[in-house]
Amino acid sequence: MSEHWKIPASRALRADGLRVADIDTSAKPGFHGRKKDGEQLLSERSKVLAALQEKLYANGRSGDNRSVLLVLQGMDTAGKGGIVRHVIGSVDPQGVDHAAFGIPTAKEKRHHFLWRIRKALPRGGQLGVFDRSHYEDVLVVRVHGLVPEAIWEQRYAEINDFEQELTESGTTLVKVAMFVSLDEQKKRLRERLERPDKYWKFSPGDIDERAYWPAYQQAYQDLLDRTSTGHAPWYVLPADAKWYSRLAVTELLIEALEKLDLNWPPANFDPAAELRRLDTA
Amino acid sequence: MSEHWKIPASRALRADGLRVADIDTSAKPGFHGRKKDGEQLLSERSKVLAALQEKLYANGRSGDNRSVLLVLQGMDTAGKGGIVRHVIGSVDPQGVDHAAFGIPTAKEKRHHFLWRIRKALPRGGQLGVFDRSHYEDVLVVRVHGLVPEAIWEQRYAEINDFEQELTESGTTLVKVAMFVSLDEQKKRLRERLERPDKYWKFSPGDIDERAYWPAYQQAYQDLLDRTSTGHAPWYVLPADAKWYSRLAVTELLIEALEKLDLNWPPANFDPAAELRRLDTA
Repeated sequence: MSEHWKIPASRALRADGLRVADIDTSAKPGFHGRKKDGEQLLSERSKVLAALQEKLYANGRSGDNRSVLLVLQGMDTAGKGGIVRHVIGSVDPQGVDHAAFGIPTAKEKRHHFLWRIRKALPRGGQLGVFDRSHYEDVLVVRVHGLVPEAIWEQRYAEINDFEQELTESGTTLVKVAMFVSLDEQKKRLRERLERPDKYWKFSPGDIDERAYWPAYQQAYQDLLDRTSTGHAPWYVLPADAKWYSRLAVTELLIEALEKLDLNWPPANFDPAAELRRLDTA
Repeated sequence: MSEHWKIPASRALRADGLRVADIDTSAKPGFHGRKKDGEQLLSERSKVLAALQEKLYANGRSGDNRSVLLVLQGMDTAGKGGIVRHVIGSVDPQGVDHAAFGIPTAKEKRHHFLWRIRKALPRGGQLGVFDRSHYEDVLVVRVHGLVPEAIWEQRYAEINDFEQELTESGTTLVKVAMFVSLDEQKKRLRERLERPDKYWKFSPGDIDERAYWPAYQQAYQDLLDRTSTGHAPWYVLPADAKWYSRLAVTELLIEALEKLDLNWPPANFDPAAELRRLDTA
């Protein structure tokens, strides 16, 4: 909290009852101020995040199996990669378990959709980040009819069970759905086509997907309605302003870490005795 | 290169013919200037490193299988973790494949010593970092006689063959051995014992290991003499000054990346045609 951010991000961004069609992608829920205030605040809060993450890591090294897992979903260009680079990039890489989920490999397709997800879960003490996730299996898979409806339909319940199991075993889920407007997406895709140093981020399929936006909106609506649970709520992030989305995710992660109420792990040795031993070693 | 760093780090830190017993751990090979000049330079060069790493990543995403692997070795408190946090921490986490190698698990022990190493190799386009590595198998394992001499003795040749295979398949190895003086190590261990926020970094075994320093010196000497090869040379890093060691590793990585002579991947689509298509999408 600060003069520019006064209510918990988890409250400001809570998905409950929200209509996807009504999302103002240029809004900045929770934040009051100008862009430069936001950038200044982000720089300060990144240090708070890094300090909390170090404590989580320290506890992990001392046997605590708790972890935090940031799940990022969003259409192409929504800024998932920027969150990884600028938010997760502010903490110690040793403590980060990062996984990106693209089109499943042939091997992954032969397994249950959660198989590859389970293999990538953060270890105790780690800050995990999923760039896309098991939610692709009720988004792109549903929109393009890659499996029959009877299959994707049951996945909502499977996901809820899976996430409950995760939560019970010590993983705090921070699920963030990022939304940009179709106009903002067009602007960002145009940049990728105009700058040779951005070509690698572009795929012609990104344009094709724009035609499916209404179907994606419906899929996102069901996702929010059916998988935003008490143990693993969704947060809806208006993402037209990159600086705001980075700040908001930083706030969400800080909140999640503060809730763990972490202390530095106690010594499992006698510091005074070890200091005496060190003197003559 | 800059006014404070005039010769390639790979030349300044080259291990050839060096006697471990003669290493001046407070030296700053390659650097001319004061600490504040070094810190300023590190901040500038970190941006250069991040830009080169993004190009490596972009090429990896476009099918290039080349990668760079930083191998960090050093006694306790030498600063390996600080290199990960402050040097690797300056690049995009998406492009980092980090692995730390502690005491092998029961499962790992049932395999060849390179088994767990092979599983953790960086993917194409990634900047890999090993915090300790296969070299533990000719260091701690040798010093404490954890396997018979006949076994560790043959590992030098196995490691050279392994690294040649890696190099031929597109991985540039940057092997850095970090050395602090016994006095500096004592100072750093003392800090871990005096500050409750550092207890978790301390283990009583760290003090016990100090008695083995002559044996470790011999093991490091053989390591440098026998595994510093043309395709995968060792660099010897005096590490009493943390700011210097971070700057030196940054320079080594920049050099390794520059040698790859990376360009932005060309478009595998027609940008002008895609721009027209985007206009109406």
